Order: sequence, then C-alpha cells, then structure tokens
Amino acid sequence: MAIAVDAMGGDSPLTVQIEAALKAISELGTEVVLVGAEDRIKEILKKKSYDKNKLRIVNSTEIVEMDDSPATALRQKKNSSIKVAIDLLATGEADAVVSAGNTGAAMATAKLVLKSVEGIERPAIATLMPSIHRNHPFVLLDIGANTDCKPLYLFQFALMGDAYARTLLHLDNPRVALLNNGEEEGKGYLQLKETFDLLKQSTLNFSGNIEGKSMFKDIVDVVVCDGFIGNIALKVAEGTFDFVRSVLREEVENTLLAKIGYQAMRGPFSALRKRADYSEVGGAPLLGVNGIVIICHGSSRAHTIRNAIKHAQECAEQKLNEKISLEVSENLDVINQAKSMAEKT
Amino acid sequence: MAIAVDAMGGDSPLTVQIEAALKAISELGTEVVLVGAEDRIKEILKKKSYDKNKLRIVNSTEIVEMDDSPATALRQKKNSSIKVAIDLLATGEADAVVSAGNTGAAMATAKLVLKSVEGIERPAIATLMPSIHRNHPFVLLDIGANTDCKPLYLFQFALMGDAYARTLLHLDNPRVALLNNGEEEGKGYLQLKETFDLLKQSTLNFSGNIEGKSMFKDIVDVVVCDGFIGNIALKVAEGTFDFVRSVLREEVENTLLAKIGYQAMRGPFSALRKRADYSEVGGAPLLGVNGIVIICHGSSRAHTIRNAIKHAQECAEQKLNEKISLEVSENLDVINQAKSMAEKT
Repeated sequence: MAIAVDAMGGDSPLTVQIEAALKAISELGTEVVLVGAEDRIKEILKKKSYDKNKLRIVNSTEIVEMDDSPATALRQKKNSSIKVAIDLLATGEADAVVSAGNTGAAMATAKLVLKSVEGIERPAIATLMPSIHRNHPFVLLDIGANTDCKPLYLFQFALMGDAYARTLLHLDNPRVALLNNGEEEGKGYLQLKETFDLLKQSTLNFSGNIEGKSMFKDIVDVVVCDGFIGNIALKVAEGTFDFVRSVLREEVENTLLAKIGYQAMRGPFSALRKRADYSEVGGAPLLGVNGIVIICHGSSRAHTIRNAIKHAQECAEQKLNEKISLEVSENLDVINQAKSMAEKT
Repeated sequence: MAIAVDAMGGDSPLTVQIEAALKAISELGTEVVLVGAEDRIKEILKKKSYDKNKLRIVNSTEIVEMDDSPATALRQKKNSSIKVAIDLLATGEADAVVSAGNTGAAMATAKLVLKSVEGIERPAIATLMPSIHRNHPFVLLDIGANTDCKPLYLFQFALMGDAYARTLLHLDNPRVALLNNGEEEGKGYLQLKETFDLLKQSTLNFSGNIEGKSMFKDIVDVVVCDGFIGNIALKVAEGTFDFVRSVLREEVENTLLAKIGYQAMRGPFSALRKRADYSEVGGAPLLGVNGIVIICHGSSRAHTIRNAIKHAQECAEQKLNEKISLEVSENLDVINQAKSMAEKT
C-alpha cells in the first residue's frame, strides 16, 4: 500500500508535503511516493533521517498554480505533479493520492484519467461535519464538485456518502437525509422532490429531509445536497464559527472578570475548536472516481496532510470504491428510473 | 399611523399579541388595531389598563392554523384574522400588519390582496443577520418566499434589499452582494452569472459575489440569494450557534476551573447571544407588496412582537415602498433586459 503525495500542490509546495510524508512514514508506517521536482525533493531530504524503504520519489516537471483553470491544467501541464500522481494511481503504482493543490485541476484530472466508478455519473466531494455527539461527525456531500444537479446525481451522491460513512465512520446502517428547507415530504424545488422519491425506494436507511439547523444534532449520518448548496452550508458554518470567536474576543476585553473567565475556559474553547474543525481530520475525498483521491486545503499544514495520508490509506485498505460499486448494483432499478426521468426532461 | 396585529396567529394566540400591543401603546405611543375574536380580546383587556384611544379591536371569525396550506387559508378562511388584518391595510385603515401566524398564508394573502409593488414580480422575505461590527447587521434576502428564482427576481430582490437597508439601517449607499460559491465573477450557476451582469449595470453599489464565510465580516450590507439558499444559510447559521452553545456547555462540565470561567464569562456570552439573534429585532418584512407586512416566528414572545410593531411603524413612516418604487424606476432598463432574457429561455 503506497500513497502518492502531490509535493508541489498547495500554498507551501515541497515543505509541508515532505514533512507530512516523513511523519506518515515514521508515525504510521505508511509507504509514500512523493511526486514533484525530484532534485529539490532530494535536496530537502538530505538533511532528514527516515526509513528509505518507505519513500519513493517520482519526478514531475510542471506545476499547476492555484489559479490555473482545470482546462489549462489538463491541456498545458501534462507533466504536472498532480497529473503524474494520478497516473501512478491509474497504473497501480500507488493506491491513493493526496493533494493540497488546485482542487478544480485535481478533480478534472482524476475524472479524465481514472474515470468514474461504473454507475456513477458525477464524482462528488464529501467532508465530515461536526455534530453535538463528540465522536460522531456526519458526512456532507457534495460540497463543491457539481453546481447543478439532477435527481440522478443527487441519488448517486447519497449512495457514495453512505459507502463513505460505512467505511470511515464504521457505521452499519447510516441515516441518510436530504438537505432541504423543511422536513415534510414535498419540500424544496422539483429536483429535490424527485430525489426524495428515489431515496424512498432505495436500499438506503433514508430518514427524509433535514433542515440546516438540525443537521448538527446527531440525528443523521449523511446529508446530501448539490455542490452549490453544500458550499454555502459549509462556508456559512465556518463564517458563524469565526463570528462567534471574533465577538467573544471583543466582548471579553470589556471587563477584567471576563478576561479571567476566558483564561479559565481555555480548555472548553480548545475542545470546541477541535470538535468543530473536521478539516483537521485530513482532507476531503473525491468520491466516485476509480481510485482514492483526497483533496486538502491549499493552506494545510503538515499535520493535516499527514492525516490526509492516513485518511487515504484507510479508504484504500477498506476498499471504499468496492462499497460504492456494491451500493450501485443494489440500487440499479432506482438508478435506471432516475435515468429515464432525466431523459424525459 | 396604526399597526394591525394578527391576534390569533402564532403558538400563543391572544396572549402574547395583546401583551405586545399594550407594550407598544405604552412604551412607543403606537396606535394598534387588534384583529381577532373580539369577545375574547375584550375579556382579556378588561383586566388591563391602557390608553383606550390608541387601541381598536376588529373582529374576525376564523383562524388559520399553523399547518394549514396557503390555499386552504385563501379559499376556506376568508374571515381569518390575517385576512381581515391585511384587508385593513388595503383599505387604509391600518398602515402595516404584524403577524406571528402561518407564514405561507400571510404571504399568499398579502400577495393576493395587496398585489406586488409595480415593477416587482415576486415579493421576498428579508431578515437582518449579525456582522462582527456591533451595530451593523446586514440584510439577507430572500429567506424563504421563492424557492426557484430567475435572474429577474434576484435582481428585484437586490433592489428591495437595498431600499430596506436604506430605510431600516439608515445607510446612504448600501453595499449589495450576491451569495455565491466563490468571489470571482463567473462563479455559480447560470442564473447567478446572469444576475451578476444585471447588478453590474444597475444603480446599486454592487460589490460582487460574496461567500457564505465572508458575509459576517462587515464588508456587505445586503446579501441576495434565492429563498431556498437563504433558508439554508439562515438555518445553518442557527444550527452552528446551537452547536457552539451545546458543546461549550458540555465541555464546561469537565473541570471546576472551566465552570468558574463560564460564570465569569456570563457577560460576553449574553452579549454574543444578543448580537447574534437578530430575530429579536422583531420579525422579517415581506418586501415587495403594496403595504408593510412583518412576519414573526410562531414562537415569538410579547417583547419580539412589540419590536415587530416598532419595526412595522418605522418601515411605514419612512415609506419603504416608495423607496422600492424609486429603485425600480431608476433601473427600468435593466429590469426590461432581464425580462427579455427570461422570455428567451
């Protein structure tokens, strides 16, 4: 089992990725393939000590910049670190890829090279979100891969989110819900109503619609929405946390008593931060391509990328994509119904 | 200036509404028309002392239940408190309506009886949201009136949100933004791109796209989105606050030090709660109908409804709808362009 790490992607190319790779090797015993400018990687590694049997370097000559369009990346940078890393996955030389580089480029390259899992039309990006239960986050998808979604796609996201929750959260029968503007059946726009009907007929443990307010309450395990809504939900939650932090900091300055209280509450605040920030778990998987691809924030630190390597390894070891394929095969009737629905419109 | 209050709407009909009306009369000097079961209202008022010149009662014989469909309310309950209240507005016997009853029914009745402001296709519900600036909330709309929106509608929401921000927040030139999944021009689905183009050509102080994470940062005054997205954004923010509260409460229980710190921080926590909860400002206006209609949560207490009466009075006194009409007339070219765009699709 070897995890390919895109060493050139992200805000700090070569530094955090190499540090993360060495952490994964020493702390997790993972085999890592560093993909990037070989000479520069070797130069940095000279000063480090690590188990040389567990680290391989594969050279790449180009870099996809954070603001390159996916089209530019695909057409003009065919020897980029992300392309070479995904090629390694396609040829079986690596079992998963981790990248903190340009998300659009990673997604487009993965779709082009790896192709979709059979029965899946559109790959989606999933993330873990916190719930009030300490050890029980939920899966939110899609958070950005697909802006506009037919019921067929949303239904397939539900299957993939379910497989991911079974894999990573070790749940036997995840509760799957549809993010909507009310809990009653019939809520939302037409595509959501049609998706609701598909989910009712599926093998999934479908618990109906869920509102944005309730999803943190540990009553669902997988929340399905299109990539636009998912982005809004994720970002509004982040913005709200920032708002709370900012207002409390300001208010605390008003009295000495509050300042002392703030110090005394450092433990709970630190726990809250940890419980809220699941991006620290280590990246977000691109579900539905033939291979495990984990995408990290460009600003990720070594610790997060090390966690993403672990995350990638778990998904690969536990054969996440076989689980997705199984779910697809168990729900072929519903998928076919959704397809004929899509053809009519 | 008289404000009609739907005395039968909400979770606690007749009690909180009457208490709120008496507060508004004594604290604000407002004239109030209580609309509902006259005998029962008189019975309750017997025990109260108040300025009788400022309170009028108008009888209604039916009640729209919280789970009645708008169609049921319109067709089968023509003498409901909300219908009678809105009729008073239409005939000029009241200058605004406040209701904590069934939102869908209030909206449908207002649209049917009052009609839309000329040049406005779809009325929208707006709400104030907190920003990190203590005295500077922003306006978010639509938060639920329209699930699916053409660029024409979104553009009109922007005009109405702008007029509302000028009226209630007393801003000279509100910064108007479009809620999107990225800040760059060209982000989002087709309707948003088209709305972006319309906004660029308008008289509004358009500041481009804004992400869900940034909208709390006091860099915009009006955030425009369709009613589905607005509902998700509002509810996710509420859910995140609940999550923070719940986790902190749990974590504080772990150590005595933290418990003491929590007590010492009561001031900042209470300030945070106040700064976060703009629903306490008193309801959300239904913008774009010929008349001021303020909608409150069914669970609103007397204090909130009293604030909603004040809110309604301010909007009426400052002639919010004239401001909306002015904005429409200043942007007729853009509206016509949006209409011809809509006809093509």
